[in-house]
Amino acid sequence: MIKVGIIGSTGYAGAELVRILLNHPDAKIVWYGSRSYVGSEYADIYGNMFELVDDKCLDDDMDALADAADVIFTATPQGYCASKVSEGLLTKTKIIDISADYRIKDAARYEEWYGIHHPTPEFLPEAVYGLPELNREMIKNARLIANPGCFPTCSILTIYPLIKAGIINPDTVIIDAKSGTTGAGRGAKVQNLYCEVNETIKAYGVAVHRHTPEIEDQLSIAAGRPILVQFTPHLVPMNRGILVTAYASLAKETSYEEVKAAYDAMYENEKFVRVLKKDKVAETRYVKGSNYADVGFKLDARTGRIVMMGAIDNVVKGAAGQAVQNMNIMFGLDEAEGLHMVPESI
Amino acid sequence: MIKVGIIGSTGYAGAELVRILLNHPDAKIVWYGSRSYVGSEYADIYGNMFELVDDKCLDDDMDALADAADVIFTATPQGYCASKVSEGLLTKTKIIDISADYRIKDAARYEEWYGIHHPTPEFLPEAVYGLPELNREMIKNARLIANPGCFPTCSILTIYPLIKAGIINPDTVIIDAKSGTTGAGRGAKVQNLYCEVNETIKAYGVAVHRHTPEIEDQLSIAAGRPILVQFTPHLVPMNRGILVTAYASLAKETSYEEVKAAYDAMYENEKFVRVLKKDKVAETRYVKGSNYADVGFKLDARTGRIVMMGAIDNVVKGAAGQAVQNMNIMFGLDEAEGLHMVPESI
Amino acid sequence: MIKVGIIGSTGYAGAELVRILLNHPDAKIVWYGSRSYVGSEYADIYGNMFELVDDKCLDDDMDALADAADVIFTATPQGYCASKVSEGLLTKTKIIDISADYRIKDAARYEEWYGIHHPTPEFLPEAVYGLPELNREMIKNARLIANPGCFPTCSILTIYPLIKAGIINPDTVIIDAKSGTTGAGRGAKVQNLYCEVNETIKAYGVAVHRHTPEIEDQLSIAAGRPILVQFTPHLVPMNRGILVTAYASLAKETSYEEVKAAYDAMYENEKFVRVLKKDKVAETRYVKGSNYADVGFKLDARTGRIVMMGAIDNVVKGAAGQAVQNMNIMFGLDEAEGLHMVPESI
Amino acid sequence: MIKVGIIGSTGYAGAELVRILLNHPDAKIVWYGSRSYVGSEYADIYGNMFELVDDKCLDDDMDALADAADVIFTATPQGYCASKVSEGLLTKTKIIDISADYRIKDAARYEEWYGIHHPTPEFLPEAVYGLPELNREMIKNARLIANPGCFPTCSILTIYPLIKAGIINPDTVIIDAKSGTTGAGRGAKVQNLYCEVNETIKAYGVAVHRHTPEIEDQLSIAAGRPILVQFTPHLVPMNRGILVTAYASLAKETSYEEVKAAYDAMYENEKFVRVLKKDKVAETRYVKGSNYADVGFKLDARTGRIVMMGAIDNVVKGAAGQAVQNMNIMFGLDEAEGLHMVPESI
Repeated sequence: MIKVGIIGSTGYAGAELVRILLNHPDAKIVWYGSRSYVGSEYADIYGNMFELVDDKCLDDDMDALADAADVIFTATPQGYCASKVSEGLLTKTKIIDISADYRIKDAARYEEWYGIHHPTPEFLPEAVYGLPELNREMIKNARLIANPGCFPTCSILTIYPLIKAGIINPDTVIIDAKSGTTGAGRGAKVQNLYCEVNETIKAYGVAVHRHTPEIEDQLSIAAGRPILVQFTPHLVPMNRGILVTAYASLAKETSYEEVKAAYDAMYENEKFVRVLKKDKVAETRYVKGSNYADVGFKLDARTGRIVMMGAIDNVVKGAAGQAVQNMNIMFGLDEAEGLHMVPESI
Repeated sequence: MIKVGIIGSTGYAGAELVRILLNHPDAKIVWYGSRSYVGSEYADIYGNMFELVDDKCLDDDMDALADAADVIFTATPQGYCASKVSEGLLTKTKIIDISADYRIKDAARYEEWYGIHHPTPEFLPEAVYGLPELNREMIKNARLIANPGCFPTCSILTIYPLIKAGIINPDTVIIDAKSGTTGAGRGAKVQNLYCEVNETIKAYGVAVHRHTPEIEDQLSIAAGRPILVQFTPHLVPMNRGILVTAYASLAKETSYEEVKAAYDAMYENEKFVRVLKKDKVAETRYVKGSNYADVGFKLDARTGRIVMMGAIDNVVKGAAGQAVQNMNIMFGLDEAEGLHMVPESI
Repeated sequence: MIKVGIIGSTGYAGAELVRILLNHPDAKIVWYGSRSYVGSEYADIYGNMFELVDDKCLDDDMDALADAADVIFTATPQGYCASKVSEGLLTKTKIIDISADYRIKDAARYEEWYGIHHPTPEFLPEAVYGLPELNREMIKNARLIANPGCFPTCSILTIYPLIKAGIINPDTVIIDAKSGTTGAGRGAKVQNLYCEVNETIKAYGVAVHRHTPEIEDQLSIAAGRPILVQFTPHLVPMNRGILVTAYASLAKETSYEEVKAAYDAMYENEKFVRVLKKDKVAETRYVKGSNYADVGFKLDARTGRIVMMGAIDNVVKGAAGQAVQNMNIMFGLDEAEGLHMVPESI
Repeated sequence: MIKVGIIGSTGYAGAELVRILLNHPDAKIVWYGSRSYVGSEYADIYGNMFELVDDKCLDDDMDALADAADVIFTATPQGYCASKVSEGLLTKTKIIDISADYRIKDAARYEEWYGIHHPTPEFLPEAVYGLPELNREMIKNARLIANPGCFPTCSILTIYPLIKAGIINPDTVIIDAKSGTTGAGRGAKVQNLYCEVNETIKAYGVAVHRHTPEIEDQLSIAAGRPILVQFTPHLVPMNRGILVTAYASLAKETSYEEVKAAYDAMYENEKFVRVLKKDKVAETRYVKGSNYADVGFKLDARTGRIVMMGAIDNVVKGAAGQAVQNMNIMFGLDEAEGLHMVPESI
C-alpha cells in the first residue's frame, strides 16, 4: 500500500486527488495538507467526503511528510514545491509536483513567464515531464515528476503527433483553448464568482499565458527545433473540461488516412488517449470525470489547413488523474489502476 | 458473472446503468436495448462510451432477452414493462423495473394518477418496492422489483424515520422538491431545450404529480394509516440531483438529540444513507455521481415545525444506482458492489 | 431632472440601479459611490457600461451627497444607512434605503435577527416600507423609504391577498423560496465561486434567515394579528430570479374563482403584478430583467391546501427596480417611468 | 407609426424582435406569424409577454402581410423568404430577411453551401447586406435587406478594419467563434436539450459551416480581392452571446496605436461598436441584451500575429437588434431608436 501525502488537498486538484485515491486499491492517503484549513475536518470543507474521509487537515509540511509518505503530491501555488525540494527530501520520498515549478527546463524561461525566482534550478535536469504518453520510460525511475499543466496536456496530446509526423508546419500552430472554471482555482476572487462567470465567455492571458512556454517546449521536441505557438485560453461557464481547437497549415498535401495513421501510430496502445472516428468532434462532456483525452481532426482542403481538436477533464487528465497515472508508473503498478472512472456525459 | 439486459439503454437512466455496470466486477451487459436507435453503435449515441462499449443497440425485446439475461432492467416509459411481464418471463429471468408500473400496489390508484390501464395487476402483489433501506429482506428473493422513483426515494428516506418514530404529525407533511433536468428525460421537447431550462426555475405538476401516491403509500406504512402529502417538484437548471425540503409540524416537543436518534436508528448501518452532522444542510453536489442519500434537519422551536432536507443524485440513487443495489441484493452480492463512486462535488 | 446619488454602486443592486437609471428620462446619476473602488472608472469595473458611464467611483459619503443629490439610494451592508440618517440629512435629500435598516419597525426585533445595534431607531416610525402595492399613498410623501427585501417582496405579493381575504389560515404559511446567486452579493467568498454554486442546490439560513421577520411583519398586517411563517431560502445556479412556492391550509372551502378574485381585487390596477391565468405557474425567466412580479396558485382539494407561486427578478422588483418605482412615486412621476423593460425569457 | 409584420415570431430571433419592438416608439407589430402555433395566444408560448402582447399567432403568410405591414421581418428557415419575394411584394412593403437567403450575392455559392436551390436569384443584386457600419447609405433606400448572420456580424466587425487598413495578411485569417445556445434555434432536437449542452463545449460544422462564405464575401471586399477564412464555431453552455477570437499574421511591423487608429477610423462615430481600451478583452456578458458590438485586440510581437476579439449578443446585434437598426435607417428614423437597451452584465 503506497502511503500518499497531499500538499494543497483542499484546492480543486487536491480534492480530485482525494476523490480518485479513495478508490485506488494500492494507495492510501496519510496526510491531507491544507495551509488554509489546518485543524478542520476535511469532510467539513468537502461535504462529499462525509463518512469517506475522517481526517483533519494538516499543515503543508513537506519535510514532516517526507518521513510519512512514499510519495508527495504538491497541488500548490507556483514556487512552493521548488522552495522545498532537496536531495534529502528526494532520498526519502518521491514527489509529483502538480504546480509548474519543474515543467520548464530553462530556469530563466520559467522566471520570465512566471515572474518568480526559481530557488532550486539544480533539480530541473532530473525532473521528468510527466506526460506518460511521451515519457513513460523516464517516469518509471523518476524521483521528481513535473506533472503537466492542464492546457499543455490537452494541447500536446492533440498536436504532437502531427508535428512529429511532419504533417503540419509547426510555425503555424495556433491553439484556441477553452477551459471550465475549476481551472481558475478555489481562491476567493470576485472574477470567479458565480455571477461573473455564468452566461459569458472571454479570453484571458492573451499572448502571455504561462502555459505557452510549456507547450512550446514539448512541441519543439516533436519538431526537432524550437518553435513558437499562439496560445489563447478562454473561460467557459462550466465546472470541468478543456477543449483545444488547434489550427495549422499542412506541410504538404495529406489524406485523411495519413493523418489518422499518424495519430494511431502514437496512441494505438494508449488506454487514455482515444483517437476519434472520422467526423467526430471532441467534446468535453465525453471525458468528464475520467482520465481520457479525446483527439480528433478535420482536414480543410479548401484552406490547406487542419483543425485539430482535443478534450480532457482538466482536473483529471489535466491534473490529479495524470498525477495518479504517473504514480502508478513510478511504483510499478498497472498504469490505469484507480483510474477506471467511466466518463459521465450527463 | 451476471448477464444483464437493459431495455431503454439510451435514456438517461439507461445510460447511467451502463456507466455503473461497466465498472461492476460481477456483471456484464449483454443487451443494449433502444427502440429509437436499433442498429446504431451505442458509442455513437453516447460518445463517452467510445472504446468502452463496442455493442450496437438492439430492439426492446424482453422476450428474447429473457433467454439471454439473468436480469433485465427496464428503463422505459410507463406501461411498457407491465405489458410484458408474465409468469413465463419471471421463471426465466429477474426484472428490475425502473418505470413506475409496479410501484403502486393498488392498480386503480395507479390508473388514476398515471392515466393508463394496468395490463398485469396480478403481479402487483409479488412485486417488491425496491428501496433496500426499507425492504432489504424481501428484495433478496424477489423476481420482480419496482425500482422506486427519484422523488419518492429522496422523500421517503428523508421523512420516513420521523413518521415512524412519531416525531412529526404525518398529516402536515409538505414536500418541496427540486430536480435536475435529467429527471425530465431525453425526449426532444421544446420545454427541455437548453435555453428554456437555463437561468430559470419553476414548479410543475403542482398537486397532480405522479410520484405523489408512491410517496404517500410508503409514508402511510410508516404512519400505520393512510396519509396524504403535499408534493411540489421544481425544475432546476442543473443536470443531476434532487433536493427535498420537507416540512412537518412536530407531534410533541422534541430535542435535537431525539430527532437525530430517530434517523440514526434507521440508518446507522446503512452505507448509502448519510445522516448529516448538526447544522449541515443537504446539498446535491455532495452526492453527485454517487449512490449516497444525504439527510439532515433543522428544528424550529419558534414555529413548532421541523425542516427535513435530503439530497440524492436522481440518476444514481434515484434510478440506476439503486437498481444495481437491488441487483446486488437479489444475487447475493455485497450490496455496494460496483457502487463505490465517490461523489464529485465539483 | 432628479439628481441621484448611489451609495454602493458596484454591488449587484447598485449596478442594476445604474442600468435602469441610464434609461430613465427624468433622473441623472451624479454620484457613483463605492468604498472599494474609489477613484476607479466605473466602466472598468462594469465593462457593460463602457461608453455609457464616464464617471469614476467616489467614496460612500452620504453627507457630501446630501448636498448634491435629490435622492440617495443606499445599496449598502446592514447598519451603514442607519448610522448616517439624521434630521439634517433628511431635510436636504430623500433616502431610499435598499438595506434592511428601516424595514422592521421594532428595533429590538431588528437587533435580534440581524445581530447588530440599531443606531437611529428614532427614524423607524417615519420610514415607509416601500412596497408600492401596499403603501403607495405613504410613499408619496416619504423622506425615508425602507426598500423591501427581495424574498419579502416576492413572498408578500404572493401571499398577502389570500390572508387579507381570509382564504387561508395564516398560521399555516410555509414559504419555500429559491433565489438566483446575485442574491448572495458580489463579495469575494469561496462559497459563491462559480464551481461551488454551479450544478447544485441547497437551502441556507434554515429557520433563521433575516428576511423572516420582515415577511411576518407585513403578513401580520394582512392578518390583523401577529403571525409566524416558516421561511426557507435556497440558492439556485442561475444569476437572477426568485421563485416563492408558498403553502397554506385553506380557511374554508374555496373555489378557484374566489381565490382569483382575491388576487384580482388587489392587483387589477397594478402594472407590475401580473396574476397568471389558470394552471399557469410562475417562472423566473418570464420576469427576468423586468420589474414584474408574476403570481399564480393551485388549489388542492385533496389536501385542503393551496399552493401559491410568485416570481420576481430579485435585482429589479426585489431591489433596484422597486427602488426606482418608489423614487417615481416620491417625485410625482409616472410610477412606471424608466421601468418599461420587457422581460427577457431567454 | 411603422406597421411591422413578423414571420417566424416564436423562434428566438422572432421573440427578440417582439421584445425590442414593444419598446420602440415608432413601430407597432401588426402580425405575429408562426406556422407552428397558429391560433395560440402569443403570451401562452412566451410567458414573459403576458399582459404585454394580447395577439394570437397567425400563419406565415407574406402575401397577406404585404398589405398590412410597412415592413416584414422574416425570421424563418433558409429558403422561405426567397420563395416568397416578388416584385409585387416589394412594391407593397419592405422586407428585412433575417434568414440567409439574400446574403450571398452568388446564387451558385449559396446553393453550394446551403444545399438548397435559390428560387429568386434575380433579387440578389438588389438586396442590400444589412450591416449598417458598412452599408448605411445603401440601406436607406433598400426594399430588401439581407440581415447579416450572427457569426458574420461579429466576425466582420472584428476583422474588417484591419484588413481594410492593410495591417493583417488576409490569407491568414482564422476565426474561432463561440456561441450561446439560442444560436441553435428553438427546434426540438435531442442535441439541444439542456443536459446535452450544459457542462460541455464542442466545435461544430468544422470547415463546412454556412456562415463561412458570408464572412469571406465581406472580408474580400475589405481586401479588394477574394480571400478564404478558416471558421470554426463552438457551442457554449450559455443562452446568449457570440465571442469571436480571430487570428492573423501581421502584414508588417505595427504598433498598438496604429491598430487602434484603424479601428477608431471605422468606428469612432458608430454608436453600436465599442472599441475597447488597451488590454481589455471582449466579453459576451458586457453586451448581453444590447445592440453593442465590443471589439478589442492584442498584438503579439513574439509571434508576429494579432489576436482580435469581438463580442455581440447573437439575438440582438446578431439578429433582431440589427434588423431593427436596419428598419430605423430605412424609415428615416434615428438609427438607435428602440435600441437603447443597456447591457446587463449579470
